[in-house]
Amino acid sequence: MEETFVPFRGIKNDLQGRLLCYKQDWTGGLRAGFRILAPTTYIFFASAIPVISFGEQLEKNTDGVLTAVQTLASTALCGIIHSIIGGQPLLILGVAEPTVLMYTFMFNFAKDRPDLGPKLFLAWTGWVCVWTSGLLFLLAILGASSIINRFTRIAGELFGLLIAMLFMQEAIKGLIDEFRIPGRESPTLTEFQPSWRFANGMFALVLSFGLFLTALRSRKARSWRYGSGWLRGFIADYGVPLMVLVWTAVSYIPAGSIPKGIPRRLFSPNPWSPGAYENWTIIKDMLNVPVLYIIGAFIPATMIAVLYYFDHSVASQLAQQKEFNLRKPPSFHYDLLLLGFMVILCGLIGIPPANGVIPQSPMHTKSLATLKHQLLRNRLVETARKCIRENSSLGQMYESMQEAYQHMQTPLVYQEPSALGLKELKDSTIQLASSMGNMEAPIDETVFDIENEIDDLLPVEVKEQRLSNLLQAIMVGGCVAAMPFLKKIPTSVLWGYFAFMAVESLPGNQFWERILLLFTAPSRRYKVLEDYHATFVETVPFKTIAMFTIFQTAYLLVCFGITWVPIAGVLFPLMIMLLVPVRQYILPKFFKGAHLQDLDAAEYEEVPALSFNFTSQERELSRRSSFADHGEVLDGMITRGRGEIRRTCSLKMTSSTATPTKDFKSTKSFSDRVCSPRIAELRGIQSPRFGGRGPFSPRTGEARQSNLGKSGQNSDIN
Amino acid sequence: MEETFVPFRGIKNDLQGRLLCYKQDWTGGLRAGFRILAPTTYIFFASAIPVISFGEQLEKNTDGVLTAVQTLASTALCGIIHSIIGGQPLLILGVAEPTVLMYTFMFNFAKDRPDLGPKLFLAWTGWVCVWTSGLLFLLAILGASSIINRFTRIAGELFGLLIAMLFMQEAIKGLIDEFRIPGRESPTLTEFQPSWRFANGMFALVLSFGLFLTALRSRKARSWRYGSGWLRGFIADYGVPLMVLVWTAVSYIPAGSIPKGIPRRLFSPNPWSPGAYENWTIIKDMLNVPVLYIIGAFIPATMIAVLYYFDHSVASQLAQQKEFNLRKPPSFHYDLLLLGFMVILCGLIGIPPANGVIPQSPMHTKSLATLKHQLLRNRLVETARKCIRENSSLGQMYESMQEAYQHMQTPLVYQEPSALGLKELKDSTIQLASSMGNMEAPIDETVFDIENEIDDLLPVEVKEQRLSNLLQAIMVGGCVAAMPFLKKIPTSVLWGYFAFMAVESLPGNQFWERILLLFTAPSRRYKVLEDYHATFVETVPFKTIAMFTIFQTAYLLVCFGITWVPIAGVLFPLMIMLLVPVRQYILPKFFKGAHLQDLDAAEYEEVPALSFNFTSQERELSRRSSFADHGEVLDGMITRGRGEIRRTCSLKMTSSTATPTKDFKSTKSFSDRVCSPRIAELRGIQSPRFGGRGPFSPRTGEARQSNLGKSGQNSDIN
Repeated sequence: MEETFVPFRGIKNDLQGRLLCYKQDWTGGLRAGFRILAPTTYIFFASAIPVISFGEQLEKNTDGVLTAVQTLASTALCGIIHSIIGGQPLLILGVAEPTVLMYTFMFNFAKDRPDLGPKLFLAWTGWVCVWTSGLLFLLAILGASSIINRFTRIAGELFGLLIAMLFMQEAIKGLIDEFRIPGRESPTLTEFQPSWRFANGMFALVLSFGLFLTALRSRKARSWRYGSGWLRGFIADYGVPLMVLVWTAVSYIPAGSIPKGIPRRLFSPNPWSPGAYENWTIIKDMLNVPVLYIIGAFIPATMIAVLYYFDHSVASQLAQQKEFNLRKPPSFHYDLLLLGFMVILCGLIGIPPANGVIPQSPMHTKSLATLKHQLLRNRLVETARKCIRENSSLGQMYESMQEAYQHMQTPLVYQEPSALGLKELKDSTIQLASSMGNMEAPIDETVFDIENEIDDLLPVEVKEQRLSNLLQAIMVGGCVAAMPFLKKIPTSVLWGYFAFMAVESLPGNQFWERILLLFTAPSRRYKVLEDYHATFVETVPFKTIAMFTIFQTAYLLVCFGITWVPIAGVLFPLMIMLLVPVRQYILPKFFKGAHLQDLDAAEYEEVPALSFNFTSQERELSRRSSFADHGEVLDGMITRGRGEIRRTCSLKMTSSTATPTKDFKSTKSFSDRVCSPRIAELRGIQSPRFGGRGPFSPRTGEARQSNLGKSGQNSDIN
Repeated sequence: MEETFVPFRGIKNDLQGRLLCYKQDWTGGLRAGFRILAPTTYIFFASAIPVISFGEQLEKNTDGVLTAVQTLASTALCGIIHSIIGGQPLLILGVAEPTVLMYTFMFNFAKDRPDLGPKLFLAWTGWVCVWTSGLLFLLAILGASSIINRFTRIAGELFGLLIAMLFMQEAIKGLIDEFRIPGRESPTLTEFQPSWRFANGMFALVLSFGLFLTALRSRKARSWRYGSGWLRGFIADYGVPLMVLVWTAVSYIPAGSIPKGIPRRLFSPNPWSPGAYENWTIIKDMLNVPVLYIIGAFIPATMIAVLYYFDHSVASQLAQQKEFNLRKPPSFHYDLLLLGFMVILCGLIGIPPANGVIPQSPMHTKSLATLKHQLLRNRLVETARKCIRENSSLGQMYESMQEAYQHMQTPLVYQEPSALGLKELKDSTIQLASSMGNMEAPIDETVFDIENEIDDLLPVEVKEQRLSNLLQAIMVGGCVAAMPFLKKIPTSVLWGYFAFMAVESLPGNQFWERILLLFTAPSRRYKVLEDYHATFVETVPFKTIAMFTIFQTAYLLVCFGITWVPIAGVLFPLMIMLLVPVRQYILPKFFKGAHLQDLDAAEYEEVPALSFNFTSQERELSRRSSFADHGEVLDGMITRGRGEIRRTCSLKMTSSTATPTKDFKSTKSFSDRVCSPRIAELRGIQSPRFGGRGPFSPRTGEARQSNLGKSGQNSDIN
């Protein structure tokens, strides 16, 4: 999107784009059937567990004024609102760590003021929310989100890694605390004797590592060799919640011989306990707040507004990365406006507001890509099987498969039902078919392995709809009622889950993978090439990659250090915003333009033409990328979190003369085929700019990745 | 070897064969330099830790008459004797679980007899040992070991898996006991309060799982991407002892706040404690044993003799499996004779005797195969590098490499220094070379990747020598002196180590892999084919594999059940000996001869000629096997314990028409080339029988595996 600061224009564009596909957002979700429950449950746990844990933290910090009941209520409420009338339904909302820190700071400020105190604290935060939402409205109307495309990969990925570090820090802190006496408890209880405390700590280690390791394993179940396909799929989809159940059950095994408080479990009042209602009516206290404090509330409000503007937009951006091949338009301006409304709503009923969260939002998109892949795959396999039964020829079969594929495509109102979307499938399959035998002869199933072949044909697509977001938000709301059950979960399982989330968010983060590359032995770097990998690995000299990564790591550590600063630490996003000018004005002085473009593509930079016509073509020729192995590669790329499509370098070290592999087909860009011009424009894909720029491997929907495609998040929103 | 029962003939043959290479056994070991320390340390730990743990068990069971001091002393003494004057130096000796069980049984019998009692117990066992050794002499002289070739893969692998189960059982039992009060301790101590006991158990879980998981990981370090090659090699070689150190250190972290007895550590008297000397002089008490008991000692002696005959021979057999391509002759008869001497020696000084142990013996061979691979590889890479520096042509380079390879071959006295050993290397390399370019042109290092290519060329070979065995035995002896340090190791680390050993022994066991195959989803079975795999996977119908495996599993469970029977349980090896007639007379009624031959080759069975000339050739054609990836494949096959060479099926599911791959070369059998006729005869390789039986892939030294080669252990010793 262009950087327009004409008032309301951004919001209007967003609304127009999203309204066009609003109906499909629901019908598409409903048509997925019960399978939608897999991403829903996955995101529900990823969303609820941190929120509960932040609620616990808030309860400790605010002397029980706010608890997990309020954080869950806010997450559910905002989630439901956003999923129904929000712009981008891939975005997941929740009460996040920065909010907790801000509220803690405000409580510490308020409780010691005689004319405010804990009693008027929530009323005062109501005023803070009023100011915050005012600022957010201003930002939304003036089109502040336009400049989000200046946040390049370097900023987004640094932020992602920082969040992963904070999650991991939370896990480690939590585990260490298991060996200590919690502040709110009486140290004279049996379970806080040194022996039981030590036992509790050790038990916590067992439970959290148990959860951590088994949850990580279960996510990879689809590639297991053992068990039926159904079981593997079930474990991959529901393994994480299942493991929470399993390890909670394990925590009850030694129940007979040990005191009740071991292992420690979630501590939160039931929503029907006395006092749990107090916050809902603070609106009537708001006018009791002294005027000076009402005006003073503007100061924290600016901080929160900056924080939310950044968090919300970056979470949304990371959920809509280029490599997901999204078809529906983004909605940064309108979502920011809506966030303003939600902030004021939360403020008036005395609950901390929710905003877009990382890593849950990209996790959501990834899980929906897996879902879409499965749906497509099942349908195509079924079609192919039917054709084989009917003794169709290979040509007929692909005809039918294309029809089925067409049928599965998001049938957007404004998209002409052309064969464009199918052309690529046709091209690639026919080419494959002809390499295998006569197009007209009946298919020999022993030669043609449907399940494998179909995985090869499917591009990355995402099931874009609103249902999973709505359902997960409702389930989070259900947690408030299910509090007595939630309280059975040991806190140590939570810490394991935090560690799991941190690790789950790493793959696909190019920053992280460059860090790994630095530690890869020089003699093993060829292995990176054999794997799926990003372009820069081949095009940028190692020394440059190293320099760039070391700079980014240093910056990351500074940001991480800032989060430790008592109050100002909440503003660590400012440090990340500072990366924008650094990237735009300072980095180009130290790195070559072409290298910078490959490492961290920025739309506002032009790439030298030579690197296009020449290198990129040659580059493409020497690679192939295919989805093999029953969607495991997709697992590798998407479910396990690899956000960007990698390519397999088909070259062995010994024969580096590049020849086109048989899998390679030269067709038009994936983006070209899936989008009508209107949508393409909305999604920032300008067909003429992309057309004819060298060959392109359609199988993975690898959308011009090597050069323009690399502009990743940016082109999503220009 | 033929089944000769002519007295002394077997012993004579063994002695003749081993004497020929005796000098080389030492010079070869010394020439390996400090690298010999890697397998030595590895086996030392694998040998010492169970022996210490069995000593603990014995101490509990014999009221302290025998302790870890005695078991260590026996293991060291027998190990030193065997490594110097034993026949097969690959065989590792140690005090094993059955010995512990027998001694426990004998102690329970003796302690209640008024005219025997604990005081004369050792003197009585002296008599038992005298009888036992008499029986072993008889068995050795009469050539009982000849029938060891009737123990086919089915028996050896079942025994291996049974031992793994017993090790795992030991680990689980040990862990459970960490939650209980040990029998010998006073339950009033602080550390046995319920809280500390629970804490101890949880700590034990952390330590044992920590050791187990990190030790398993460290063994795979050679294939890691990170860290320098030196570091990776170091971790792979010494990771396991390193992890024992690390986790012992971890066990001291919470030392400040917890009682001294947590975590529990090894309990054993120092060898210089009063009372620790008593056993050494029991010979003077032997005549005080009543005559009736001296005669009665014959009964346990027969059991022990049967046990040792079986254990010793099978351990030796598993250490000399066909796939290791050993060059030096076996020595079953002579080793059994020597065992008799060692039993009487141990009996007279009142220590429990040692015998050949599983899984340590095959682990020893595998670690020496890794060593040999590294030595060969380093030398050849060095030679190749030198040639490239000197701008030699490809032809010249291979000439030099062959020279170097020749130089590295075990220069046996009786082996004519012909070019036979090189022919295959030459053939394969020249073929490879010609496929890459002109033989005469200088080598282009960018095209020719030395390190990768050389791994492709190396066959599996074992560094057969006596040094590693001698050194590890001496180190075990050193443990007696190092007892104060050993006592710092937590018992829980021991349990983790037991589990590690059990898991380490699984890969390469075809029985285990068939069990896994049963659980592999039908749609994933093709993955087994893509991997290295045994012949039967391709030649035997799945149903037959399943039937065979289910039978074997049932048999295994019966054997495992028998070990639980109070006293007779010691004789579970009899059940395994019973497998010999079952295999010979009963199984052929249920399974086709060709299938049985592929699943469990037996020398005494003839294979139908058709399956030779036809299937095997075609089969070979459709496969290739190469050592790629810097020895990781070797790691996969050897270090990680895969005993048998697998083959990669180069066929994808979609193109099953077999065409010879470029890697395939048709040369003579590996066995033919490496052995002089004399050695070939000793190793049971009869060249005329093998000659001209279809093609053979030389790269892996895959010695006619698909048919005759499958007779595995048997042909080693006929």
